[in-house]
Amino acid sequence: MAKINLHYRKLSAGYLFPEIGRRVRLFQQENPDHEVHRLGIGNTTEPLTLTVLEGLRDGVERLGDAETYTGYGDEQGEEELRNELARFYGRRNIVLDPDEIFISDGAKPDAANIQSVFSTENRVAVQDPAYPVYVDTNVIAGRSGPFDPDLGNYAGFVYMVCSRDNNFIPDPPQEHVDLIYLCSPNNPTGAVASREELKRFVDYARENKAVLVYDAAYAEFISDPDLPRSIYEVDGAKECAIEINSFSKLAGFTGVRLGWSVVPKALVVEDSEPGEVHRLWFRRQTTFFNGASNIAQRGGMAVLSEQGLKECAGLINYYMENARIIGDGLQALGLEYYGGVNAPYLWLKTPVNLSSWDFFDKLLNEAQVVGTPGSGFGPSGEGYFRLSAFGHREDIEEAVQSMKSRLKL
Amino acid sequence: MAKINLHYRKLSAGYLFPEIGRRVRLFQQENPDHEVHRLGIGNTTEPLTLTVLEGLRDGVERLGDAETYTGYGDEQGEEELRNELARFYGRRNIVLDPDEIFISDGAKPDAANIQSVFSTENRVAVQDPAYPVYVDTNVIAGRSGPFDPDLGNYAGFVYMVCSRDNNFIPDPPQEHVDLIYLCSPNNPTGAVASREELKRFVDYARENKAVLVYDAAYAEFISDPDLPRSIYEVDGAKECAIEINSFSKLAGFTGVRLGWSVVPKALVVEDSEPGEVHRLWFRRQTTFFNGASNIAQRGGMAVLSEQGLKECAGLINYYMENARIIGDGLQALGLEYYGGVNAPYLWLKTPVNLSSWDFFDKLLNEAQVVGTPGSGFGPSGEGYFRLSAFGHREDIEEAVQSMKSRLKL
Repeated sequence: MAKINLHYRKLSAGYLFPEIGRRVRLFQQENPDHEVHRLGIGNTTEPLTLTVLEGLRDGVERLGDAETYTGYGDEQGEEELRNELARFYGRRNIVLDPDEIFISDGAKPDAANIQSVFSTENRVAVQDPAYPVYVDTNVIAGRSGPFDPDLGNYAGFVYMVCSRDNNFIPDPPQEHVDLIYLCSPNNPTGAVASREELKRFVDYARENKAVLVYDAAYAEFISDPDLPRSIYEVDGAKECAIEINSFSKLAGFTGVRLGWSVVPKALVVEDSEPGEVHRLWFRRQTTFFNGASNIAQRGGMAVLSEQGLKECAGLINYYMENARIIGDGLQALGLEYYGGVNAPYLWLKTPVNLSSWDFFDKLLNEAQVVGTPGSGFGPSGEGYFRLSAFGHREDIEEAVQSMKSRLKL
Repeated sequence: MAKINLHYRKLSAGYLFPEIGRRVRLFQQENPDHEVHRLGIGNTTEPLTLTVLEGLRDGVERLGDAETYTGYGDEQGEEELRNELARFYGRRNIVLDPDEIFISDGAKPDAANIQSVFSTENRVAVQDPAYPVYVDTNVIAGRSGPFDPDLGNYAGFVYMVCSRDNNFIPDPPQEHVDLIYLCSPNNPTGAVASREELKRFVDYARENKAVLVYDAAYAEFISDPDLPRSIYEVDGAKECAIEINSFSKLAGFTGVRLGWSVVPKALVVEDSEPGEVHRLWFRRQTTFFNGASNIAQRGGMAVLSEQGLKECAGLINYYMENARIIGDGLQALGLEYYGGVNAPYLWLKTPVNLSSWDFFDKLLNEAQVVGTPGSGFGPSGEGYFRLSAFGHREDIEEAVQSMKSRLKL
C-alpha cells in the first residue's frame, strides 16, 4: 500500500504567489476597468540582447545540421561553458577548477536540491525573511517539525532574524547548526553582506564544520566595488561554501533556464573526505538530471563573451534605474524602505504598522500596485513589503505615479 | 557538523557509462588507427526536422521582442503545450485533463524525482534488467539495504526477472510492493508489454493500492497497432499509474530537454484522498523546478503539430531501419537476440555464455563496436548485451559489416 511523503502535509498553506494571484484576479473581476501594475514577482521583462539572441540562434541551427547536432551532452555542463565560467570568476581573482562548476537549469532547482546530498538529521539555519524554497525543500526532506501558525515558523529550523537593527544582515547563529542558507544580494530585503559579515559566517562554518549554501543569483546587481560578489572572495570559503548562481537575472534567462553551482573539491563536512561532497553532487546531478538545454548553454556562452557581458550590464542598469525610480517615489511618499541600490528589490516598512497582507490589499485597492507581502518570506518579514524593480519602465513609472497620487497615507 | 546523506555510499561503483567510456578511451589510446563504432548509449544523432527547427527559432525570436518576451512561465508547463498533449492522448481515446499533465525537462528527471512524493518506507519493485535511474534514486532516498556484489542487487528491492522464459515481460510480484517501475517499450530489452500483460499490473496495483510508474519514453517506436502506447489504454490505470514520457526519442530532443508526466487526479494511495498525489507532484514541481525552457516548449508545440508528428515519424523510421540492419547482421552471425522491432534497442544473448563485460571487450577488441553490457542494468542482464539503433546509417552499416567480418564466433 503506497503511502505519501507525509512531510508535505507540514507545509504551511500554499506558496506565496498563488495567493497573490488569487487576490489580484478577484480585484480585476471587481474592477475590470482598472489597470494593475505588477511589482510583485521578480520576473524579467526586457528582451534578450543581440549577442545573446545570436548565441541562442546558433544553438538552434546547430541542431538542424548532422555535422553539429548534439544529443545528450556532459551532464555537468558543456566544458566550454564551464571554462568560461571559471574565467568569469578569474576576473575577480577567484581560482576555480572548471570541474567544480556544475551547469544546471537554474538557481531554484539547485537551491532546492542541494540539501539532498546531506543527512536529513542536519540542522538548518535560514535568514528570516528568506526565499521560501530554502525552507520548503528542507521541510519536505523531513528536517523540520510542524509549522506553528502563530509564530509563522517551523520547529527545528534556526531563523536568523534580519531586521533594521542589523541592517538585515544577521550574525551567525549562537547555537550549533549544519546547513546555513545565505542570499546576498538578498531576496527579499535587498541587503548585501560585506566581506567582513561573510567572513563571520565562513569562520563559523569552518569552526562548526557547517556548510554555507550561498545564493548569489543577484550578484551582478552590485555596483559598489567594495561589496563581494562571490562567497569565494572570503578566504577559507572553499572549505565550507557552495555557491549557487544563475543566468536568469544576469541575462534575462528566467524563461530560458540556465544556472550553475560551485561545489569546491576542498569542501569537507563531518563524516566526509575532501572531494566527497563534490562527488556526491556530481552523482546527484548525473542520476537525477540530464543536463541543461544545449540551446540555453550556447546562449550562456554568448552571455559570457565580452560583448555579451557588456550588453547584459545594460539590462541590469535598466532594472536598477527602475529601482531608483521606485525608491524616489517611496521617499517622496515619506515611506521607509531599504535595498534597491545594489539589488533589484526594495524592502518597504509598512506604514502605521499595517500587516504585510493589509498593506498588500491597501496598495492594490488604492493604487492598483501589486507587491509581495514580507510575511510570505518568514515571520520577520511581517510588517514589510517587497517591491521588485523588474518591469517595463513605463509600467514602473505609472505604478510610482499611481502610488504618489492615490495611496492614502 | 554537517553530515552527508550516507545512502549515497550504498550505490554500487559508478554509473555504467563512465566505465564504458574508460574502456573505450583505453582501447583508442592503444589502437589509435582503429575507428570505433558506438552502439552503446541511446543517444539521438539525426538533426531536428524542419518544422521543429521552425518552432525553436520562433521560441528564440519571441525572446528578442518586448511584445512577445516571456520570463518565468507556468511551472507546470505552458497551457498551450499541455492542451496539445491532451489532444495527443485523445487520438488514442485517452481522456486527460490538461491539468493532469506536467511539462518537465525530460523523462529522466521525472523518473528520478517521482519517488520523492512517496514515503521512504514504501517497498520498490523494478524490472530486472532496468534503466539504472529507477534503482539508484530509490537507493539514495533510503528505500534499500546494502548492495550485494555477489548477487548484483540491493537488499530490500523486489527484482522482477525479465528473461527469455517470460519474453522479458515479468508477472506482477507475488509479494506485496508499493511502487512498481515499468518501462515499455523496454530499455534495455526492447520488449513491449501487451494490453493483457499491463492489465495484470493494473489489477495488482489496484488490489494492493500500489503505484505504477510507467515509463513510456519509447512509445512512438511501436509500429504494431495492437500494442499499447500508454498505460491509460488499460481500464483503471488512472487510479494507480503515473506515466512518464519525453520528446527526446520522439523528436530528437535529447539535448533540447523536454518531457512530460501524467499524474491523474483519480490516483489514490493508502493514506491519501483522490487528487492528493496530483497535488503533491504539483507542489514538488513548483518548489524544486522552475519550468522547462520556453524555447524548448515552443519546439514541443511544433513537434505536436500535424506536420511535426509526420516528420518525427520519419526520424523514428530512420532509427528503426537501423534496428532492422543490426538485427539482420546479428541473424547472419547466428547470434540470438530480442527486441529491435517495436523498440530501438536490441537485446543480444552473449555467445558461449560469455559474461556481459567479456563480450563487451571482445566486441570492442575484435570488431571495434561499442555496446552496453547487460549486467549494468541489473543481475538478470548478465549474459546479455544491449545494442542501440541510434546512430548515423553509415556508422550502423559499418558496425554491422565490421562485426560480420571480424567477430570470431
